[in-house]
Parts: sequence; C-alpha cells; structure tokens
Amino acid sequence: MSTSKTIIQAIVDHRLFQAVIITLILLNAILVGVETYDHIYEEYALLFLYADRVLLWLFTIEIALRLIAAGPKSFVRGGWNWFDSIIVLAGHLFTGGHFITVLRILRVLRVLRAISVIPSLRRLVDALVMTIPSLANILVLMGIFLYIFAVIGTMLFSGVFPEYFGNLQLTALSLFQIVTLESWASGIMRPLMEYSPWVWIYFVAFILVGTFIIFNLFIGVIVNNVEKANEEEKEPPASRRDIQEMNEQIRELKAMLEEQQKKSS
Amino acid sequence: MSTSKTIIQAIVDHRLFQAVIITLILLNAILVGVETYDHIYEEYALLFLYADRVLLWLFTIEIALRLIAAGPKSFVRGGWNWFDSIIVLAGHLFTGGHFITVLRILRVLRVLRAISVIPSLRRLVDALVMTIPSLANILVLMGIFLYIFAVIGTMLFSGVFPEYFGNLQLTALSLFQIVTLESWASGIMRPLMEYSPWVWIYFVAFILVGTFIIFNLFIGVIVNNVEKANEEEKEPPASRRDIQEMNEQIRELKAMLEEQQKKSS
Amino acid sequence: MSTSKTIIQAIVDHRLFQAVIITLILLNAILVGVETYDHIYEEYALLFLYADRVLLWLFTIEIALRLIAAGPKSFVRGGWNWFDSIIVLAGHLFTGGHFITVLRILRVLRVLRAISVIPSLRRLVDALVMTIPSLANILVLMGIFLYIFAVIGTMLFSGVFPEYFGNLQLTALSLFQIVTLESWASGIMRPLMEYSPWVWIYFVAFILVGTFIIFNLFIGVIVNNVEKANEEEKEPPASRRDIQEMNEQIRELKAMLEEQQKKSS
Amino acid sequence: MSTSKTIIQAIVDHRLFQAVIITLILLNAILVGVETYDHIYEEYALLFLYADRVLLWLFTIEIALRLIAAGPKSFVRGGWNWFDSIIVLAGHLFTGGHFITVLRILRVLRVLRAISVIPSLRRLVDALVMTIPSLANILVLMGIFLYIFAVIGTMLFSGVFPEYFGNLQLTALSLFQIVTLESWASGIMRPLMEYSPWVWIYFVAFILVGTFIIFNLFIGVIVNNVEKANEEEKEPPASRRDIQEMNEQIRELKAMLEEQQKKSS
Repeated sequence: MSTSKTIIQAIVDHRLFQAVIITLILLNAILVGVETYDHIYEEYALLFLYADRVLLWLFTIEIALRLIAAGPKSFVRGGWNWFDSIIVLAGHLFTGGHFITVLRILRVLRVLRAISVIPSLRRLVDALVMTIPSLANILVLMGIFLYIFAVIGTMLFSGVFPEYFGNLQLTALSLFQIVTLESWASGIMRPLMEYSPWVWIYFVAFILVGTFIIFNLFIGVIVNNVEKANEEEKEPPASRRDIQEMNEQIRELKAMLEEQQKKSS
Repeated sequence: MSTSKTIIQAIVDHRLFQAVIITLILLNAILVGVETYDHIYEEYALLFLYADRVLLWLFTIEIALRLIAAGPKSFVRGGWNWFDSIIVLAGHLFTGGHFITVLRILRVLRVLRAISVIPSLRRLVDALVMTIPSLANILVLMGIFLYIFAVIGTMLFSGVFPEYFGNLQLTALSLFQIVTLESWASGIMRPLMEYSPWVWIYFVAFILVGTFIIFNLFIGVIVNNVEKANEEEKEPPASRRDIQEMNEQIRELKAMLEEQQKKSS
Repeated sequence: MSTSKTIIQAIVDHRLFQAVIITLILLNAILVGVETYDHIYEEYALLFLYADRVLLWLFTIEIALRLIAAGPKSFVRGGWNWFDSIIVLAGHLFTGGHFITVLRILRVLRVLRAISVIPSLRRLVDALVMTIPSLANILVLMGIFLYIFAVIGTMLFSGVFPEYFGNLQLTALSLFQIVTLESWASGIMRPLMEYSPWVWIYFVAFILVGTFIIFNLFIGVIVNNVEKANEEEKEPPASRRDIQEMNEQIRELKAMLEEQQKKSS
Repeated sequence: MSTSKTIIQAIVDHRLFQAVIITLILLNAILVGVETYDHIYEEYALLFLYADRVLLWLFTIEIALRLIAAGPKSFVRGGWNWFDSIIVLAGHLFTGGHFITVLRILRVLRVLRAISVIPSLRRLVDALVMTIPSLANILVLMGIFLYIFAVIGTMLFSGVFPEYFGNLQLTALSLFQIVTLESWASGIMRPLMEYSPWVWIYFVAFILVGTFIIFNLFIGVIVNNVEKANEEEKEPPASRRDIQEMNEQIRELKAMLEEQQKKSS
C-alpha cells in the first residue's frame, strides 16, 4: 500500500471529513431551496451558478478520494458508491442551456446523498429496499390484476369517459387513483353510472381485489419484520428434543444406579 | 400405463412446455392490450382474429395434454384445472357477433392463467384464498350490519336523496362508498344535513361500526399470519411440564443415592 | 324442578328450536328489506302489517320460553337476554301511528337478533366488545384532544365558516370528518386559507395528533390480540428459573456421588 | 423536613386534593366550551371573566403547593411539572386586551392538564411520546424526501398552479395533503395534467415513496410494541445453552458412576 493511499484513507475515515461533506450537502439543500424563490434567484443568479459549480467540484473531489481510498475493486462493489457517482458525475454531463431543467433536478437529487453519507440512514434505506424482493410475487400478482382491469376498463369505458379511460396508460393511472380510494365514487363511478347502472361491478370488484392484495402486501411486511425481530433475540430457546435427549440420559443414569444397588445388596 | 401417456407426461412436465405456455399467455396479454388502441385494431383486425383463434386452440391442446397426462380422476380434483378449462373452453362457446364483449373479456381473463401456470403465484393465491374461510364469521357480521344500515338508510333518505339512497341496492353501494371514506361527508352527509341536522348520527354510527369491523377483519388476518409464521418454526420449545417430569426423575435419582449411602455406611 | 320447566328446557335447547328462530329472523330481515320498495309495500301493506304482528308475537313467545327455561335469576345475568328482550318488547310499546318511524327502525334492528341467536357470532361480538375497556384510556385521551380542538376551532372559525364550525357540535362533526381525511383540505382547509394563511397549523396539528392517537389505538388492539393468541398456546415454555433449580439438584447429586466415591476408596 | 412541608405533602398526596383538581379542570373545560356560544358569553361575560380569574389562581396555588411538597430539585426534574407550570403561569403573563385570542387558547389548553393530573393518562402519553425517538431516523428520511419533492414541485409547477405550488411552504402543505391521499388526483393532479401529460410521474412517485415510508414508520411502532409486550413476560425462557450446560453435568455424573461401577466390580 502506497503512502499517499494511506494518507487519503486516513482523511476519508476522519470524522471531520464526513462532517464537512454533510455540511456541503446541507448547503446544497439550502441553495436549491432558496433558488425556488424567483425574486432572490434572479438577483443573485450568478452567485448561485458559481456556488453550484464549486459544490459540484467539491463533491467530485470527495468521490475521487473515496475511490482512491477504497481501491477500484471494492469501490465498484458498493451500491451506494454507484449512486453517489452517478448523481455527481451527471452534473458534469448536462451542462449547457438545453438541459436546464434536468440539471436543476439533478442538483436537488444531490440532497439524497445525505442518505448515503449518514450511516444510520443508509442502513434504514438498505433495510427498506431489502423487503422489496420478498414481496416480488405479490407485486407480480398486483401487476397482473392491474393489467387485466386496465384492459377491460379501456375496452368498456374509453368511449364514454375518455379523460379517465381513453387508453391503457390513462386507465392504469385511474386505477391507481381508485386503489388509493381518492374520488373513486364521486369523480369516476357515479358519472359512469349514468351510462350504465352495472358499472359498479367493475369498481367494487377492483377495490375489493386491489385493497385485499395491498393489504396482504402489508401483512407480508409486518410478519417479515416481526419474524426478523424475533430471530434477533440472543439465544434460541431450548427445544423439546433437547429435553427429551436429557431425559434419556437421566433414565440411563437411573438404570446404572439400580444395577449398582442390586450388586451391592 | 400406456407408452403414449408416458410420452405426454414427459412433455407436460418438461421445463420447455411451461416456458412455451407462459410465452403464449404473455403473447395473449400483449394482444388484448394492443387491441384497445382502436386505430391499430381496425387496421389489423383480421390478424388479431386469426392470432386469437390460434392461441385459443393452442391453449385447448395444452389443457387436453394436461388432462391426458394427469388422468381424468386427478385432473378433476385440481381446482386450478377447472379454472383453466372454463376460461379456455368458454372461448369456444361464445363465438359469433352477439357475444363480442363477453368474448373480449374472456380473452383478457385468459391472462389470469399466468397465475395457474406459475407455481409460486399459484401458491400465493391459494394462501390468500385460504384466509377467507377463517374470516367467514366476521364477514357475516359485516353483512348483517350492512343490511340493517341499508334498510334504515333507504327508509329514511330514499325520498330526499334518490340518487344515493333510492333503493336497497343503491344504498348498499353508497354504504360501500362510505366505508371506503370517499366523499362520505362532502358528497353525501353534508347535502343531507340541509334536510335534517340529525342525519350525522346515521353516518357516524355506520363509519364507527364499519371501520371497527373491517379493522378487526384485518387484525384477524394479521394474527392468523403471525401465528402461522410462529408455528412454522422448526422445533417446539420445551414446556414447563417437560421440565417438571425431568425434575421428578432427578429427585428419584437422589433418593436412590441416599438409600445407597445409608446401606454402605 | 317442575316437569313443565323441564319440557320447556328440552324445547329451548333443541336444535330445531334454534333453526326455527333463525328462519323467523331471516323472514323478518326479508320483510323489512322488501318493505323499502314502495310500490310493493303499498300493494300489500296489510299483509306486511299482519306478518309483522305474527313475527313480533312469535319472538315474544320465544323470549318467554327462554326466560322460563333459564329461570329469572340466570336470565337476568345474560347481557344478550336483555338485548333480545328490549328489542322485542319495544315493538309492543311503540304501536300507533305516532311512532311509525321508530317502529320501523325497531323492526329492522330485530335483524340484529341473528347475532344473539347464532353462538359463533355472539362469541365474536363478545370478543370485539371486550377489547373496548382496555382501550378506555386512549379513548379518553382522544376525547380530550377532540374537545380542545373543537373549542379552539369554534373560537377561531365560527365567524368565517359557520357551516362547518358554527358551534361546538358542528365543529366536532367536522373534526370527525377531518380525522377520516375526507375532503379535509379541498373542502375545509383550502377555503379557510383565503381568510388567513396560518390556518394550516390547526389542521395539520389535528391530523398529526388525531391519526397518531387512532393509530396507537389500533396498535393496542393488535398487540392485545397477538398476546391473547400467544397466551392461548397450550403449555407455558420452561423458564430459566426452572432450569436453574434443576441444575442445583444435579450439582447436589454430584456432590453426593463424590462423597460416596471418597468413602468407597 | 419542616412540619409545614410535611403537612403540605400530606395535602398534595391526599386523594381529595386530586379529586378537587380534576373537578376544577373539568369546570375549566365546561367554561371554555360554553364560552363558544356567543349569546351566552355576551350575557354573562363578567361572570366568565371572574370564574376564569378564580380558576387561574386556584391552579397557581395548586402548583405552588406541589412545588413545596416535592422540593424545587425534584420538581424541576419532572417534565409534566414544567408543562403544568408553563400552561398556568402563561395565563398570568398574557393579560390585557391585546392578547385576547392567545389568552383564550391558553385557557383551552389548560384542559390538557387533565392528562398530567390523571396518572393512567400521563403514563399513556409518556408511552406514546417515548416511541418517537426510536422513529427519529425514519422521520429524518421522510423529511429529506418531502424537501426534495417540495423543491422539485415548486420548480415545475409554481408557474401553472400557484395556489398549490406557489412557494416551498405551499408545496410542502400540498405534499402533506397528497400523502393523506385527499383529492390528490381530482383536485391536484388532473388539473395539472392538462398542462403536461407527464406530471403523473411526480405524483405517483411521491405517493409510492411517501406511503411506503409512512407504512414502515407504522411497522416500526408495531414491532416495537410487540417486542416490548414480549419482553414484559415474567420469566425468560430457558435457552439452548442452559440445556447444554446441564447435559454436560449429567454426562460427568454418568462418567463418575461408571468409574464407581468399575471399582466395585
């Protein structure tokens, strides 16, 4: 290991380094917040531009230091390193007037780096994301039902209510709105019932199926978490089999003693 | 067992067979999706018709092969086989221009076959459906309360608000809307309060009873699932009775030893 | 015990007796349902009246038989007996044209007797009602917060929005609507924000406090139920103290054996 | 300990003292409730003023007695004592016509003292507040996402929909409304979709992220509570390690017996 690498590792691992980075992210967050007030932004537009450039380069240097400290191999394996690198490097790519909105959104997304820098938040998000794969099946099921209802909904209502059911995408969006129970009756079903009194079957069926699946999704997460919490308990409790083994040994002991008593008598 | 049956069983159990069927279902899903775009459908109407005929016959052959491979007796016992057969065979029955909408919906419902073909999804749906019987009591209770509130609601409000409370069915639908908490106040109760300031009793009572029962329905499912998860743990923990039995044996052992000591002294 | 009482007990406990009563309740339920259709009711008004009279007297006889079979002392102790008696006897009191609506609602409420007659439903409702006392504290807390927000809301908004905040009762009803999250922003807060931009504090504070308390109410019920489910497990697991007692006994055994070995050597 | 302090302690600890204070708080609650009815208030304005002055001084005396009874050191350590003192003493500060609304709200907030005076409610609120720190991480995460979406929302929609997205504060309030799922589609997204068909990405993303985080917040509280409930169980169950230790001892016992048998034979 070269001396310069050792020095860089010492810098990166230093508490002050992390504190500085969090401060920079906070500064970035305040900047993008203040920029939304047009009258302030227009007055100090150049200042905001320079501050952003400086922050971008500081973040770039930070990531370069981390890359050197960890070595390319272990750096590439960390998912959060990819996240940080893309968020920061994309800021260098989308310069120029054409991508002004993309660039501004990227600057806002840099606030997300607070998650990758603060370990407790990183662990929390890791834990939240880890629950998703175990729910893959139920999400596929939800997707199948959403697709079937979207196709049927478009088929039946695209003529009479094109704003909500005009095509597959619009219907899928309306179904998302319905499953959140927002204005599903007053805004969507009631107007449609003027055309046919039987449309309620479609809506009630979708709400029953949709909320039942979403509810089971939630149950899955709860049971997952309760189980994980139970497993983390320190020692496993003694099982009945352990006790039965022990009973067997005591029985042998007794037999040995009885034999001895017979001999001595 | 005849040789042809053995060959068919080998085909049906082959991984490629399942892959082909899933591909066909996916193709069917894409077809019904694309059909909802009228301008595409009108241009290739004949192509869609032929593709659908081919898919229908392929599915029919698939089910015939499954029937032969399993033998009629075990085929009939599988609930999912009935589901598959009805979904597919109904496609042969409702041909002709009269049943065009029924036929199109049937074609969409064939996408549901993805559930019966993919084992992990089938197990999931089986598990979801299995929770329903244990909730039968609470569903009956919900039904009784819904019926009582529907009759009272129709009695009281059919005159002043026929659109929502005109007859038993409309009131039941409105009560379903109220229990999802959608526009229950702004759309239903507030307009009615102009007729009588006491109608809030009906709505608040129904929301309290309804959400309380639904909430307990959910609790039932959660407790069910947590219990099932606990039962699946490998070994039962040792009970206090096991330990007491063991203590008894040790006590006997001690008594025997004491007796021996007396003798030898 | 007199012979007639024994006979009545045999009748009341007979399976057919319960089946007849459930049929009568179902008939009563159908009657009150059909009555809501005005054109049917007007045509057969007299028939409905007679049917109702007959049902009322049959229920009265049923309760009299139950009273005799159980004896007055044990009859009075059963909460469901009171419920049944009041529901039925009130039907005799409110006769005459003045109480027509009360009487009709009473006839509908008789459907609730299905709960008291079917044992599994009765147990379920008993269990649901039993969870309420353990939630008394949190309900009192909810009541205190509701009252405080109702008084403040009436104080601040009675002038500008009398329809929703005109007096304490109206404000309490609006707060109930807000806690169900129904049109709280679009229907109540947004119009008020035109008068003062700070009203959001009141609404956001109430929603945060209200949903937090309701959520904890739910948590309480869940934890209660999970615990109850855990307690119902057959045998209590062996505690560490049991094992320590046993270890002590084995240690004594070893000491005895060692002493013996010393002697014999 | 001086005699007067002992007497005051006896008074403060007496059951009657608490009963009197609860009665006074109830009286205060009724007073502020009745005051909201303008016609009653205007008629008896002076009476209400005097009653309030008397109650304020009685509460002040109560707190003074508590302070003397507990001694200043232990009084200062109790969080609820601070709460009581601030609520009551602020009533002395904000006298005079200028602070009339502040004073009236303070009088209403005195009803909250019911919580600090009734031990079971105090414990409940303590328990509710204690769950908050364990949720700090997830609240910070929620805050980060809310801020990012607020900045992006203001950036994108402040021009086309200033009423809901005019500045950071207004957007944050709208996002709170959206996360409660109130009119998020009918009132906010649908009108915006007329300007750009892609705005749904913003809303669906926020709802998915927001409800997922809130849901995990809830899960955290549930798992916390279930764990706490489990820990409160009286005795810890025997662990496998306990049993293994015991097995080891029995094995030694057997070895000793076998040695003895060899000797005696």
